[in-house]
Amino acid sequence: MKKLVFSLLLSASTVAFAQKKYSLVIHGGAGTITKENMTPAKEKAYTEKLTEALKAGYAELQKGNTSIAAVQSAIVILEDSPLFNAGKGAVFTNDGKNEMDASIMYGKDLSAGAVAGVHTIKNPIKAAIAVMQNSGHVMLAGAGAEKFAQQSGLDIVDPKYFWTKDRWDGLQKLKQKELEKSKKISHLPDYITVDQKFGTVGAVALDKEGNIAAGTSTGGMTNKKFGRIGDSPVIGAGTYANGQVGVSGTGWGEFFIRATAARTVAAKMEYQNKDIATATQEVISEIGKMGGDGGVIALDKDGNIAMPFNTAGMYRGAITQDGQVEIGIYK
Amino acid sequence: MKKLVFSLLLSASTVAFAQKKYSLVIHGGAGTITKENMTPAKEKAYTEKLTEALKAGYAELQKGNTSIAAVQSAIVILEDSPLFNAGKGAVFTNDGKNEMDASIMYGKDLSAGAVAGVHTIKNPIKAAIAVMQNSGHVMLAGAGAEKFAQQSGLDIVDPKYFWTKDRWDGLQKLKQKELEKSKKISHLPDYITVDQKFGTVGAVALDKEGNIAAGTSTGGMTNKKFGRIGDSPVIGAGTYANGQVGVSGTGWGEFFIRATAARTVAAKMEYQNKDIATATQEVISEIGKMGGDGGVIALDKDGNIAMPFNTAGMYRGAITQDGQVEIGIYK
Repeated sequence: MKKLVFSLLLSASTVAFAQKKYSLVIHGGAGTITKENMTPAKEKAYTEKLTEALKAGYAELQKGNTSIAAVQSAIVILEDSPLFNAGKGAVFTNDGKNEMDASIMYGKDLSAGAVAGVHTIKNPIKAAIAVMQNSGHVMLAGAGAEKFAQQSGLDIVDPKYFWTKDRWDGLQKLKQKELEKSKKISHLPDYITVDQKFGTVGAVALDKEGNIAAGTSTGGMTNKKFGRIGDSPVIGAGTYANGQVGVSGTGWGEFFIRATAARTVAAKMEYQNKDIATATQEVISEIGKMGGDGGVIALDKDGNIAMPFNTAGMYRGAITQDGQVEIGIYK
Repeated sequence: MKKLVFSLLLSASTVAFAQKKYSLVIHGGAGTITKENMTPAKEKAYTEKLTEALKAGYAELQKGNTSIAAVQSAIVILEDSPLFNAGKGAVFTNDGKNEMDASIMYGKDLSAGAVAGVHTIKNPIKAAIAVMQNSGHVMLAGAGAEKFAQQSGLDIVDPKYFWTKDRWDGLQKLKQKELEKSKKISHLPDYITVDQKFGTVGAVALDKEGNIAAGTSTGGMTNKKFGRIGDSPVIGAGTYANGQVGVSGTGWGEFFIRATAARTVAAKMEYQNKDIATATQEVISEIGKMGGDGGVIALDKDGNIAMPFNTAGMYRGAITQDGQVEIGIYK
């Protein structure tokens, strides 16, 4: 079993995270994130943005607002930043579009909402919440989802809003690579085997009423084709919450769907009385055995968290019930 | 607990279904299906088509083909019939389109495939299988999914192919009803509360190698809006299969997603050692408590089946390992 070691960049505490009570946990994607590939400036930028998201979500909880509000506030900060593959920082599809997915689930009543394949909604997590609360549906896709978001009064932006040079260059680089390899025949398209498959943001919150919400938002996979939908908008795969635990995943989405990753974490706790660390670690191990990789963040009703991953790194952070922030990036 | 009573229309057997070994089980949708609303001619047509589907799937298994082939053959028969809300008989969306979803999962290796929101693929179940086997992805949506299906050599048809008078009239009737009620304000759009939410086809097969596959295909919800996606293409909700059991659901899709219905049946068996009858009945009860309705069909590795539902009826059928056909329609 992979041992989870936290990089406590901002916290002076050396107490293991599992011994505290947390109220919010977030991730900003898993992948080939190593100290060697990082600059101090980049590390600082990620750490600051993750901290800002945690504090925004925490402020909602302090005010007595729901875990849904906390998840939204935290994720909106990450969506609005170009650092993460969600919202503003969404990667490009093969045909040069930014195509986003998001979902939310509320443990109190098992309500859920999701949008898939949207191009004009500034904050897809807000659309997922609107779907959950006002549509009578769980999952809306494409132009229909955008129409619903607009009718719900959400910010609709020109698709150009999501254009960033970094992500555009990423697409061109990947296309060039694909072109070079185009004579090779492989079962999987080349573009799936590269690290560009990663990048998602997520949050799980526990509010003062004891209710858990989990949310996930993503720009998908660089260079993706055919209207591919990953695990992020799939309830039970990328996102799940019930009365006991909330889970958000990040990684190779196809494996997270096949493993029904988020639901399986909850099922192991619900049906086998496993603790959050064991349940999450087992699911990540199962995904690893299938050939997939990534990580999950989870928060249970008692304020315990777990954040296992089988990639080189995962942007992640948590805030305790007394407001102490912890951020981790590497293994 | 609801007692499951089989209408044995074609079988002379009076032995309870649970005591036999089955190789294939199918459904053609759950809903307000009562003897009073049925004509003898309609009953005969449904019975014959369900029987044809069972025999087509069974023929694949007899030839030693995989459970995937059996699920495909059975579902194609149902998709090609105007009787069921899938393929040819798909209902209309609010804007007069036929928008279909389908998925497949193979228990042997937990591989899975799905298409959502497609308008031109003659047999969505074939597209789901192509996604599972050849795309490197699990879920493709909209025009991208159609492009992939076309590149996979599947039959692409003019959307007019899916036009049937019955379904068109159903949409007009529902729109009229909606218009009449338009001054009422309710949390749920009126169109969700009517029976038109039902209608899906599905199949679960167990092949000679002992591998299970489960598949589901649907035309969605009459008068649906906003690119709504139901449970049918969501792995873990409408469809799930592992080494132990395969499940396909039909009913009010939003509740099946929130209950992660198909995966939860399997999780109860995997983690709590519950039998197939208990696991499926519990999930249908949980959906009922949430306010939803519908049914599931399930088949385990030992050839046991269960088909609980909490609606007035569910078109369903099963074929034993020695070729005996059983069909049920009412409670």
